[in-house]
Amino acid sequence: MARLVLKFGGTSVADIDRIRNVARHVKREVDAGHEVAVVVSAMSGKTNELVAWTRAAAAMHDAREYDTVVASGEQVTSGLLAICLQEMGIDARSWQGWQIPIRTDNAHGAARIESIEANVLIERFGIGQVAVVAGFQGIGPDNRIATLGRGGSDTSAVAIAAAIGADRCDIYTDVDGVYTTDPRIEPKARRLDRVSFEEMLEMASLGAKVLQVRSVEMAMVHNVKVFVRSSFDAPESIPSGPNAVPPGTLICDEEDIVEKQVVTGIAYTRDEAQISLRRVPDKPGVSAAIFGPLAAEHINVDMIVQSVSEDGSRTDMTFTLPDGDIDKALKVLAANRERIGYEAMQSDKGMVKVSVIGIGMRSHAGVAATAFAALAAKGINIRAITTSEIKFSVLIDSEYAELAVRTLHGVYGLDKG
Amino acid sequence: MARLVLKFGGTSVADIDRIRNVARHVKREVDAGHEVAVVVSAMSGKTNELVAWTRAAAAMHDAREYDTVVASGEQVTSGLLAICLQEMGIDARSWQGWQIPIRTDNAHGAARIESIEANVLIERFGIGQVAVVAGFQGIGPDNRIATLGRGGSDTSAVAIAAAIGADRCDIYTDVDGVYTTDPRIEPKARRLDRVSFEEMLEMASLGAKVLQVRSVEMAMVHNVKVFVRSSFDAPESIPSGPNAVPPGTLICDEEDIVEKQVVTGIAYTRDEAQISLRRVPDKPGVSAAIFGPLAAEHINVDMIVQSVSEDGSRTDMTFTLPDGDIDKALKVLAANRERIGYEAMQSDKGMVKVSVIGIGMRSHAGVAATAFAALAAKGINIRAITTSEIKFSVLIDSEYAELAVRTLHGVYGLDKG
Repeated sequence: MARLVLKFGGTSVADIDRIRNVARHVKREVDAGHEVAVVVSAMSGKTNELVAWTRAAAAMHDAREYDTVVASGEQVTSGLLAICLQEMGIDARSWQGWQIPIRTDNAHGAARIESIEANVLIERFGIGQVAVVAGFQGIGPDNRIATLGRGGSDTSAVAIAAAIGADRCDIYTDVDGVYTTDPRIEPKARRLDRVSFEEMLEMASLGAKVLQVRSVEMAMVHNVKVFVRSSFDAPESIPSGPNAVPPGTLICDEEDIVEKQVVTGIAYTRDEAQISLRRVPDKPGVSAAIFGPLAAEHINVDMIVQSVSEDGSRTDMTFTLPDGDIDKALKVLAANRERIGYEAMQSDKGMVKVSVIGIGMRSHAGVAATAFAALAAKGINIRAITTSEIKFSVLIDSEYAELAVRTLHGVYGLDKG
Repeated sequence: MARLVLKFGGTSVADIDRIRNVARHVKREVDAGHEVAVVVSAMSGKTNELVAWTRAAAAMHDAREYDTVVASGEQVTSGLLAICLQEMGIDARSWQGWQIPIRTDNAHGAARIESIEANVLIERFGIGQVAVVAGFQGIGPDNRIATLGRGGSDTSAVAIAAAIGADRCDIYTDVDGVYTTDPRIEPKARRLDRVSFEEMLEMASLGAKVLQVRSVEMAMVHNVKVFVRSSFDAPESIPSGPNAVPPGTLICDEEDIVEKQVVTGIAYTRDEAQISLRRVPDKPGVSAAIFGPLAAEHINVDMIVQSVSEDGSRTDMTFTLPDGDIDKALKVLAANRERIGYEAMQSDKGMVKVSVIGIGMRSHAGVAATAFAALAAKGINIRAITTSEIKFSVLIDSEYAELAVRTLHGVYGLDKG
C-alpha cells in the first residue's frame, strides 16, 4: 500500500467524459489498495473565461475578488469528480482550499502556500475515502480565497503530497513524460525515465512546459517524487503502485538516479531579444545603472555578456530579454542614457535560446566545447553564451533553431538512449 | 439614511454590461447615504449549466457535491459585482455564505437558513463598505457549502434583510412589480402599489413567478418589507430611499395597507389534470386509501372535490394534479383499485386553474358568487371549485383561460385602479 497524490490538469477534465476517465484512473489506484488524494484544475477554457470577465469588469481589479471569481473553476471540477467517483462505488469527497484548510500568505492572485492542515485528509484515508482537492487555491490570513497563480494546481499537488507524506505525486498531463527535447522538432527525442529536480527546474524555466517551476522547487525542497504521465492512456491498462513502472518520467533527487547522464536534454525558448550598449564606461556601478531601471519596470533580463574592454576604460554590455519587453526596455535605457554613459544602443528581436542541460556536467569538462564545435560545423553563429553548473545556453538566430536543437541532440547521443 | 438590501436575479447579471448596470443601481443608493447589502444570483444560464453537469456525472448524486458545484455560479457574480463597484469608486467586497457565515441546516440542495451572523456586515457598513453577498448559499453544520434550492437567492436576500434589520429588501427583477393579473393576457392589468404578504403568498404559489414562495413566507415571519422593482430602468433616473416612491410593488404587512381591496389580483396556472373516481364507497378511510399511495409517490394533489352521495353509500371523488404526474397517478390508482373500491376512473388533462385573490374577501360575502355568475354568462363551465380565507379557485377548460382571466379582472373592477 502506498499513499499517492494524482493531479489532473484542465485538458484531462475538459468535460464529463474526461472527468469520468480521470475517475477510472483513480479507481485503478484505489483498487490496488492505495490511499489517494486527487488534485484537479478547472475544466479547460474555464479559467480563461473567468479571468476575461474580471478584466472586462475592470482593467485594474482587486486581487481578492479576482481570486473569488477564478477559484470557482476548480471548485466545480472537484465536485464533479467526487460525483463520478461515487458513481463508481468509491467513497470520495471534494475539498476546497478553505475547508482543509490550505493556508497561504496574503499575496492574492499569486499566493504562496504556508501550511496545510492535512490531518483531516489522512483521517479520511483511514476510512477508505478519496480526497478530491480543488487545486490552485487556498485561504489567506484574511479568511478569503487566495489563488496560487496560473498553473498553481501543480504546486497544490506537490504541497499536498509533502503535507500528507505521499510516496509519489503523479502529474497526469497531455504528454506522457519529459523528453530529451521537443519531439515536434526532433522526432528522435526519447522519453526520460528519470530526471533530477535540478535538471527539471532548468527544463521547466526553459520552456519544456510540462510542470510549473514553483512546483518543481517545492518538490525539491520537500523531496517529493513527482511522476509525469499521460492522462489519455486507457486507465485500466496501466500497472499501478509505487514500484510498478507505467510510462512516464520520474522527477526525483539526484541520489535516486543511478546512471547519471552528462547531458539529459535540450531545451529552447523562442522570442528572445538582444540589446547591446556600446562603449559603456567600465567602472563600478555601471551594471546597476543599466539593470536597476529595467528591474524597476519589471523587465526580466536573462543572459548578460560583458565584453572585456581593450583599454580598461570602456566596454560593451549585451543582454537578452523577452521580445515583448523590448520597446519598453529601449525607452527606459534611452531615458537613462546620460547616467549610463553608453555611446550607442543596438537591438535585435526574434532570436532563440537553446540550452543543454545535465547534472553530469558538474563532473565532466568540455561539454560546452563539444556544442560550440558542432554548431560551428553547421555554420550557426552564436551571439551570446551563458553557463551555470548544470546547463549552458546559446543565443542564435531563430532560423537555425531546429537545426541547432537536432545537432545538439545528436552530438550528445540523446538519440540513442 | 436607511439600511437596504438589493437583490438582483440572473437576467439582471447576465453579462458584464448588466453587472455594471447593477453597480449603477447600487451607487445611486450609496450616493443617497444608505447602507447597502447586495445579494446576487448566478449569471443567467450558469446554474442550469452547472446542474446539467452534475446530472451528466451521475443521475443520482451526492447533494453536498451538487451544492459545491452549483454554488460557484453566485460566487462568480459576487466577485465580478464587487470589482465593478470598486471601479466606480465604491468600497465593496464579496461575501460567500461560509464567510459571513450564513448557517443552514444539513438538507443539502434545499437547505434552510438557520442563522446569519450579520455583525460583520454591519461593522463594514460603519466604514462605508457595501456587502456583495452570494445568494442561494450558506454553510451547513458539516462545514460544507449548502444551497437553498432553486430561486433561493430571494430567500437569501430576505434573510439577510431580517438579520441586519434592513428598512427594506428591494428585489430587482425583469418586471417592474406585481400586477393585478398577467399583462400578456389582460393588457389592462395594472401594477399594484402594495400587496400583503398573505396575498403575495397566494399569488406566488399560483404562478405569478415574481418571488419565491419561501422568501415571502420568511418576509412575513420577520416582517421584512419587500419591494419588487425593475432592474432595467436607467439607474440614475429613479428616486432613492425608503420614502421615495420609485415604480414597483411593496409587499408588506396587511396593517401597512390603508386601502384594502376586496380583490387584489387574478392568478392562473396551466397544465392542470383532473382525475375522477366514480362510485367510491362513502366510508371512513377512503380518502386515505386514495391519497396515501399518491403522496407516497410524491404526487402533489391540489383541489379535491367530493360529491355528496345520493344514498349515503357511494360517492364521486374528483381531484387535480399537475399534468406531468397524471400517468404515474393513474398507474398508482389502478394498482390500488381493490383497496379503494371505485367502479370507474376518468381523467382529463390540459386544464387551467384561475384564482381570485384578495384580503378583503375575509370581510366581504358573495365575492365568489360574482365570479360564478360572470363566468356562466360567458358560457364557461366550472369543473371544480376550492376556496380559502383570502382566495378562491376554479378549474376550467384551457381554451377559456384568457377569457376567464379577462372576465374576472373586469368584474372586480381591477381595470380601473
